[in-house]
Amino acid sequence: MSYTRLCVSSIRKYCEDIYIKHGFSHDDSSQIVDVILTSDLYGIESHGVQRMMRYHNSIKKGLVNPAAKPKTVFETPVSAVIDGDKTMGQVTAYRAMLMAIKKAKKNAFGAVTVRNCNHYGIAGYYPRMAADEDLLGFSSTNTEAIAIPTFGKQPMLGTSPLALCMPADPYYFWYDVATTVVPRGKIEIYNKRELPLHDGWASDEYGNSCADAQHVLDNIRNKNFGGIFPIGGSTTDTGSHKGYGLGIIAELFTGVFANGHTSPHVQNGGMGDTSFCFIAMDYGIFGDKKDIRARMSILLQELRDSPKADGHRRIYTHGEKEMESQAEKLQNGIPVNDKTCDELKKIGSYVGLSFDDYFQE
Amino acid sequence: MSYTRLCVSSIRKYCEDIYIKHGFSHDDSSQIVDVILTSDLYGIESHGVQRMMRYHNSIKKGLVNPAAKPKTVFETPVSAVIDGDKTMGQVTAYRAMLMAIKKAKKNAFGAVTVRNCNHYGIAGYYPRMAADEDLLGFSSTNTEAIAIPTFGKQPMLGTSPLALCMPADPYYFWYDVATTVVPRGKIEIYNKRELPLHDGWASDEYGNSCADAQHVLDNIRNKNFGGIFPIGGSTTDTGSHKGYGLGIIAELFTGVFANGHTSPHVQNGGMGDTSFCFIAMDYGIFGDKKDIRARMSILLQELRDSPKADGHRRIYTHGEKEMESQAEKLQNGIPVNDKTCDELKKIGSYVGLSFDDYFQE
Repeated sequence: MSYTRLCVSSIRKYCEDIYIKHGFSHDDSSQIVDVILTSDLYGIESHGVQRMMRYHNSIKKGLVNPAAKPKTVFETPVSAVIDGDKTMGQVTAYRAMLMAIKKAKKNAFGAVTVRNCNHYGIAGYYPRMAADEDLLGFSSTNTEAIAIPTFGKQPMLGTSPLALCMPADPYYFWYDVATTVVPRGKIEIYNKRELPLHDGWASDEYGNSCADAQHVLDNIRNKNFGGIFPIGGSTTDTGSHKGYGLGIIAELFTGVFANGHTSPHVQNGGMGDTSFCFIAMDYGIFGDKKDIRARMSILLQELRDSPKADGHRRIYTHGEKEMESQAEKLQNGIPVNDKTCDELKKIGSYVGLSFDDYFQE
Repeated sequence: MSYTRLCVSSIRKYCEDIYIKHGFSHDDSSQIVDVILTSDLYGIESHGVQRMMRYHNSIKKGLVNPAAKPKTVFETPVSAVIDGDKTMGQVTAYRAMLMAIKKAKKNAFGAVTVRNCNHYGIAGYYPRMAADEDLLGFSSTNTEAIAIPTFGKQPMLGTSPLALCMPADPYYFWYDVATTVVPRGKIEIYNKRELPLHDGWASDEYGNSCADAQHVLDNIRNKNFGGIFPIGGSTTDTGSHKGYGLGIIAELFTGVFANGHTSPHVQNGGMGDTSFCFIAMDYGIFGDKKDIRARMSILLQELRDSPKADGHRRIYTHGEKEMESQAEKLQNGIPVNDKTCDELKKIGSYVGLSFDDYFQE
């Protein structure tokens, strides 16, 4: 698979115009694309422009409603619950996080949940919005069930990420992880490369660890038993129950607190059924913010500076790789693989845009 | 190792009298012992009466101050920071969680951090206090550094647990896990049994996974490099970076937010240097509490009822085993091993109490 570097401002303009053509407002289109491109800039290809064909198909099928009007259905000074009205996840998620931030600035704490919505991109985008306002941010989303509970064999929980961002210098602490040991995309990559899966990654239809990627993917596609194990793998010896519990916590903060679907009841790859949570907290409730931020920065620097394991030259803190990736890609462009380039051309063509008009020399 | 069942009310009285003799008030003694015995009742022997000899030694050495006066050093309507004045962790932790609960009842959210304190027992005790008031509860503590950052070889983070409790029926969701893949106690048990450690549990002095339990424990004791890997083990393929990040989050909420020592700077096995965090949140900020609690209960029941993996008869939700253990032990007594019985006798004798007076037929 070969990659072409595309200039960030051109790809941004092209993708924004696609969503405008789909019927989204200028502001909403710009917001959707900012979430998508942040993922590519951070080096997280899976949630970048390569996902736009799936979004496109959902819009075509009517699973996503560009004219949707999300409604606040419950509100207190520190919280809200929003019905997403099946709009693009990024649109409602952005507004919900802004609401949480506003509440946190006024009342120290703000928590907003969203139900009946669609895939919202990288979870970590939203906590970073809080950090940009010098607040602690948190977000989670549930997804279609794909994760196996410890000692189970039926997918019951999502890959549901937990994302948290805390201001620090020179890099925020930016944590964004799926509560499964690996994402589905990793199983797909191993399948393409015909590599055996690691022990404790995925389950066969009997609940046993399975090395055959094709078999695992077939089971997932056909909704047979079998799926991906939680963080900690397949046994309590490796901490499976710890990751399984994190998956339940993600579900509590999303499907349960939003009064939406929980992962076992999310349909259509999550389209229209997904729930989110956004929390912002003013960490000044624990004292002088400059001091607290400095203490966090020192902790992270001590971790990066600590002695390296044999064969390793660096210890990373979370968010560091992403900042380096972003700096490099802003300069050199975003690498987009050929298949994704073709998809972007097809989407443009469908809505009446010419890819080449945007990317000429 | 043989075990003797001791009647719960007798062991409670004996242990309370020990702490009263040590100079703690009746209320504080009763509180300390309730945390300790909850651990034994839940089947978590490591944090039960078997830990009393370590507490005893710390009190004798003056590392714990029975006459301490913890002080609130910073406070807002939704938060507080307490200086623990090196008292028993359980005493300050209990008061701090009560304070968080009071704030949450009034303002929906309460977060209290504590610094300069001692081991507080099982982390999950405190979130359960919030759940008993129909609130969501959270707690964490840092510890002496024993966890290796991903790609590192020096212990930099604690076993620092994350504990969360959400009301549900018939069992609370009660989550209490160390952010390391296994606790130190598990390495000690494998060493006693002369079993090789699992891959990805512990690191040698070069940062490589090490199967030799004695070697790992020697390194930890001698403060050489090497320690225990985070949840997710030694490689990013198994999610090491996910657990490593959870360890940083625990540190953020404790050492950083309490302005206490962070784990790399905690001395003396954590005695006097430890920081805690307690959060209570009124989940009624998301709607009708009965409905939310019912939805959480349904999710947990669906998980327990879902099809079992080959060779397994049950899928547990977090807190279920602990409730079954408690019911059984309240009826039949707490099993205490011979070594711990001897230690309890010695402690009693040191403070002028006769074990046999409390446990005669």
